[in-house]
Amino acid sequence: MQDERVRGELTMADVLAAQARIAPFIHRTPVITSHALDAILGCRAYFKCENLQRAGAFKARGAHNAVFQLSEAQARAGVVTHSSGNHGAALALAARNRGIPATVVMPANAAEVKKSAVARYGARVALCEPTLEARERTTAQIIAASGAELVHPYDDLRVMAGQGTVALELLEEVPDLDVVLCPVGGGGLLSGVAVASKALRPAIRVVGAEPEQADDAHRSLRAGRRLPPGHPHTIADGLRGALSERTFAVIRAHADDILTVSEASIITAMRSAWEILKVLIEPSAAVPLALLMQHRTLAAGGRVGVVFSGGNVDLERLPWQS
Amino acid sequence: MQDERVRGELTMADVLAAQARIAPFIHRTPVITSHALDAILGCRAYFKCENLQRAGAFKARGAHNAVFQLSEAQARAGVVTHSSGNHGAALALAARNRGIPATVVMPANAAEVKKSAVARYGARVALCEPTLEARERTTAQIIAASGAELVHPYDDLRVMAGQGTVALELLEEVPDLDVVLCPVGGGGLLSGVAVASKALRPAIRVVGAEPEQADDAHRSLRAGRRLPPGHPHTIADGLRGALSERTFAVIRAHADDILTVSEASIITAMRSAWEILKVLIEPSAAVPLALLMQHRTLAAGGRVGVVFSGGNVDLERLPWQS
Repeated sequence: MQDERVRGELTMADVLAAQARIAPFIHRTPVITSHALDAILGCRAYFKCENLQRAGAFKARGAHNAVFQLSEAQARAGVVTHSSGNHGAALALAARNRGIPATVVMPANAAEVKKSAVARYGARVALCEPTLEARERTTAQIIAASGAELVHPYDDLRVMAGQGTVALELLEEVPDLDVVLCPVGGGGLLSGVAVASKALRPAIRVVGAEPEQADDAHRSLRAGRRLPPGHPHTIADGLRGALSERTFAVIRAHADDILTVSEASIITAMRSAWEILKVLIEPSAAVPLALLMQHRTLAAGGRVGVVFSGGNVDLERLPWQS
Repeated sequence: MQDERVRGELTMADVLAAQARIAPFIHRTPVITSHALDAILGCRAYFKCENLQRAGAFKARGAHNAVFQLSEAQARAGVVTHSSGNHGAALALAARNRGIPATVVMPANAAEVKKSAVARYGARVALCEPTLEARERTTAQIIAASGAELVHPYDDLRVMAGQGTVALELLEEVPDLDVVLCPVGGGGLLSGVAVASKALRPAIRVVGAEPEQADDAHRSLRAGRRLPPGHPHTIADGLRGALSERTFAVIRAHADDILTVSEASIITAMRSAWEILKVLIEPSAAVPLALLMQHRTLAAGGRVGVVFSGGNVDLERLPWQS
């Protein structure tokens, strides 16, 4: 059956090239473990702490991989993206590191803390109405006016390859994993992680974790075709995006499954990570841990890599506080 | 002048022996950095994350070093300590790892979360009245009845040597530090860190950080003799202890200075670590970062190692929330 599936265009060579390209600009993040949490989970879990990555999320990897393969001429015109979250800050950081201009299109109602994160890295914030149409129109206007290169949050092979370097580092540190889990929103991370993990260790299972309340990837994988997103209303704000044709093709070809978790389990997992592992993870990053807590058979007794994707949270309002 | 000072008994050989002895039982914790925080601090800071240590604090080091050098006969009788905090849980863990009984004497009014942390590792909790006299009497009774070995939270060369392994790991990873900062309560951590740091790098400055509201170590070092503690009422609950003659002697011989910080600066530093570095540190662990924020000249432009001593906090009540 494998041969009949549409193979994505992303290759291990792309991920390896990304690793060399971005190494000077990103953290090699630690992998942490806890006997106490293993006892709760019934497996041995290895947490790859991309919440400790520059700008607080794995997004720094894909953004740097895109920005640092622009030609000199392209680079001079700068980069643009639309993001109300971690990718915007990551692209701003990557552009600053290359010394080129960046613009991030954000909805006017985005959280102040997110706008200021982008501005802190020296990028321009372009506000628009909070609709898909306004976002695309504003982005197109900026490209038309400046010639800036669009670096999409996930529908971009350079970005997908950069995100895959998470798995390279994880498997270099813990080579004999049975399973790798990572969150799925638009699918950039899962695409890269699946390609890299299967190339290094063909027997590994790669499973995406998605909120029940934003389960387009889960449904699409089951249906064998890309289904439209519903109206995602999950606390995991980084996972509200929907797969693109490009990420769907790679995930279909290389990932084993996508499973979903409840909102309550996301909050429980997030709190467990804070309390037991002593690291801050954002709700989106808690989704794979929630999956491991909810589906005990997924890796019973085995060795599981879990990608903690980011740690950007508002410390004034914690989800377990009333 | 150096020769006239009282040299403590703790040696680098003790710390090196501890490192080999405890290696199978503890985490080699990561050292993390942040350009964003460096820009705020005006130096290059390297944070040694003992908050990610087993049982959530550096205390696991000293406890294992004590427990794993007991003779078989001593070990059979078990260990005992008095602690309302991290050392109790650490000793319980170390005893479990050696398979011997442990008793932790705690005041009856200690937080439930701390009692359950000790019990979770299988140790017996012996409650007593919340007075120094009751604590010592209860501990003495347990020793008389069981023959258990006392492992004091800091006034014990085995414990002090174990804590010094923090500095060995830090300087192995970042050899060219100009300054090392760590918190001071009873002085066990600072003793070990000072001996190990000066042995590896004689030019390094070793500075203890203490809350203004619990400044007996600062005053004692200035006076040249051990002064009695006042009535410490600091949010940094791990630093309310007072130096012993043994820790004072080592600190006087090997540390360069002890400086103090305000309560407000501790809370600011704690929040900054959570927000920028994405790791949970407890108030006591924030004290050296507070010092770095408050005394900008301490390490201006230099390379500073900062020990994040622990991460055991109550997530229901955060100090910056009203």
